[in-house]
Amino acid sequence: MTKSLPQAGRVIPAPENVLPSEAMLSRRNALKTLVGGSVGLAAGSALAATDPGLGIAPWAKVLGKPVAADAYGMPSQFEKNIVRRESPGLTRTSQSSVAFTPLQNLFGIITPNGLHFERHHGGRAEVDPYQHRLMVHGLVREAKVFTMEDLLRLPSVSRIHFIECGANTGMNWANVAVPTVQYSHGMLSCSEWTGVLLSTVLDAVGIDRKQAKFILAEGADAAGLTRTVPIEMALDDVMLAYGQNGEMLRAEQGYPLRLLVPGVQGVSSVKWLQRIEVGDKPWHTREETLHYSDLMPDGLSRQFTGIQECKSVITSPSGGQKLLDKGYYQISGFAWSGRGAIKRVDVSTDGGRNWRTAELQTPVLTKALTRFRADFIWDGSPTLLQSRAMDDTGYVQPKIRQLREVRGTRSIYHNNAIQTWLLDANGEVHNVEV
Amino acid sequence: MTKSLPQAGRVIPAPENVLPSEAMLSRRNALKTLVGGSVGLAAGSALAATDPGLGIAPWAKVLGKPVAADAYGMPSQFEKNIVRRESPGLTRTSQSSVAFTPLQNLFGIITPNGLHFERHHGGRAEVDPYQHRLMVHGLVREAKVFTMEDLLRLPSVSRIHFIECGANTGMNWANVAVPTVQYSHGMLSCSEWTGVLLSTVLDAVGIDRKQAKFILAEGADAAGLTRTVPIEMALDDVMLAYGQNGEMLRAEQGYPLRLLVPGVQGVSSVKWLQRIEVGDKPWHTREETLHYSDLMPDGLSRQFTGIQECKSVITSPSGGQKLLDKGYYQISGFAWSGRGAIKRVDVSTDGGRNWRTAELQTPVLTKALTRFRADFIWDGSPTLLQSRAMDDTGYVQPKIRQLREVRGTRSIYHNNAIQTWLLDANGEVHNVEV
Repeated sequence: MTKSLPQAGRVIPAPENVLPSEAMLSRRNALKTLVGGSVGLAAGSALAATDPGLGIAPWAKVLGKPVAADAYGMPSQFEKNIVRRESPGLTRTSQSSVAFTPLQNLFGIITPNGLHFERHHGGRAEVDPYQHRLMVHGLVREAKVFTMEDLLRLPSVSRIHFIECGANTGMNWANVAVPTVQYSHGMLSCSEWTGVLLSTVLDAVGIDRKQAKFILAEGADAAGLTRTVPIEMALDDVMLAYGQNGEMLRAEQGYPLRLLVPGVQGVSSVKWLQRIEVGDKPWHTREETLHYSDLMPDGLSRQFTGIQECKSVITSPSGGQKLLDKGYYQISGFAWSGRGAIKRVDVSTDGGRNWRTAELQTPVLTKALTRFRADFIWDGSPTLLQSRAMDDTGYVQPKIRQLREVRGTRSIYHNNAIQTWLLDANGEVHNVEV
Repeated sequence: MTKSLPQAGRVIPAPENVLPSEAMLSRRNALKTLVGGSVGLAAGSALAATDPGLGIAPWAKVLGKPVAADAYGMPSQFEKNIVRRESPGLTRTSQSSVAFTPLQNLFGIITPNGLHFERHHGGRAEVDPYQHRLMVHGLVREAKVFTMEDLLRLPSVSRIHFIECGANTGMNWANVAVPTVQYSHGMLSCSEWTGVLLSTVLDAVGIDRKQAKFILAEGADAAGLTRTVPIEMALDDVMLAYGQNGEMLRAEQGYPLRLLVPGVQGVSSVKWLQRIEVGDKPWHTREETLHYSDLMPDGLSRQFTGIQECKSVITSPSGGQKLLDKGYYQISGFAWSGRGAIKRVDVSTDGGRNWRTAELQTPVLTKALTRFRADFIWDGSPTLLQSRAMDDTGYVQPKIRQLREVRGTRSIYHNNAIQTWLLDANGEVHNVEV
């Protein structure tokens, strides 16, 4: 972790914040003091001689740029540091690698396509959609090969779901102090996906309902990645996705076609999808035996542990950010569950002794990121920030110690523990354990 | 309209579709026939000698590209024709111009930021966020100047809303046969916006509740665009927006700050926002007198007609697209209302004589695009396609004749009439009136 930190996030304070303590917290009072450069005017005065004025901005004096017709738009030049990052030393090549989403810079719940995390096993395949085919075969009445034109014509659905890599937060198992939320939790993104329900296609090819117990999904990339999915999931909400946030999938998300298995670790959402086989038992492929299985303290491995359990993380303030002043901040972050919808998120500013309930951005969607927000007045003293999510099954996000008691420290996958950030007296935020 | 058409959309048929008529429509039966290149296998056979096989795709034989770390991602090279377009001849300069969103290529309800329509009055301002200021003054207790850091620290909200230019579909008033839905309806986009409610800031500066009746919003661009907004809206859902689909606003959307007035014609969502003035009467500025007022048959103009009434349009199939074969298609499009949520969308395939109810993508959100979908079997004969939306106030989208009876043909703004597409016997789709 020698590389310099990504941009320290957007928590940059205003010059004057003099509220004495969180005990006096009132949002209205806090906000009344949270302004920079205020200029007093007599109550009720309209445009007055004492009007603060703005001068004329330099960009108001010149004709602006033309509309960007015939071109795909890009972020402002001032945002160029907000990009996906590789974690130095984590992977040996940039083909079989990870680029993490800058969660600390995101707003709301949608991840823009240009910032969706990437994880490849054999590099990003460049697939010609006119040549691409999907074969569906195995325990079916009639095996079929679909072109993209076929699939684009079938009845479609659009749903907002997160994708999280099973290894997200994996470095925290052994207490590696990953410095920022981009590296600790950034194998996580959320999009509006569009495609055909797999059940629609399985219905069209006619699966054998008695024998069919699992499907195999295979990618057309150099890794030929394969994963087993239980038939109950395949017939429920699994999607053959070609659309991502309104447009076609990005190449790094499996253009032109990926499987989407909502709520399950990302590796199952096989990219560049070229084959679905229907079978009567799991396949035990490389990526569900050697990898993506959970090494337990007794040396055995848990297998097929795909569902991403309920989890949350504060993204602002978060590791690597710096608060320059005491006063009002909005604590904000993400909560999600592979089993359904988020029911509640609590936040603590004293390392988990006291909790209060955060506000959830609505609508709260199943198997989607949920944005939570809570008022916070920083009194300038060291503060331990935590969030704890609960989903609609009643499952409560555990502490890291609770997880380690059962699962040890040798696992890579499925660390959904409560994250603690230490806001120190200098305003700097660090990844710590309590 | 001499420019060549944008990409004809995604409605490309499979080779064999032989269903005889819509009267026989059954989705399951339709889908059973909607497959290309199917290969029969004995029922229940697993991987068999008769397996169709795929060969090895060329991209499976080579290592793929590295992850795109330190770079902002772009669409696939195969999608480069899906961009915003200027309508040739519509505007005299590319600074005071429009670039239309390719609605025919969108999925779901989110418009990717790179495709959000643009409309500028003095070009796209390039604003330095560190120098940018927002002044709030007028009938307030204490005028204040906010930096972006101040605003980013205030309590934020995220909401999905559409923005539609008041002039959208304006060329249809006088029956100009705009060929594609990109040009007829493409001044329309929908994003998850994040920012501070204007009410939060007005509360912080202390408005005079008795006198304050309106606010003025002013942009920092070369046009110095100004618009009046009633105080009831300002205190309701109007937002000071800095986030768009998870990231900071794009430059062409007012980076780093715009007003967002949900449900109201786009011009009121003032970009590069630098000033909010609180007053007791409307300002009657240039953009609410000379422009953005509705010229009526008697020569008078309706003014302050900002709310975008309930409207819908079929985007697939739509003008400029071509269906090559009879058979199953999914009719799909957008519905929206500036007054609230969409309650119902009906579609007709016989020019409005018979209607059936379309499926709405959930969740249906207030003042947001709503995706509707309906099954359709094309029998190969000329077909008039229409959609008709109703919002939760009970308002029903009108026919163009009904609108013209009251408003004449000289207006530019607020044409929310039912759109008719003619699917001719060659499978080509045209913009027509019935």
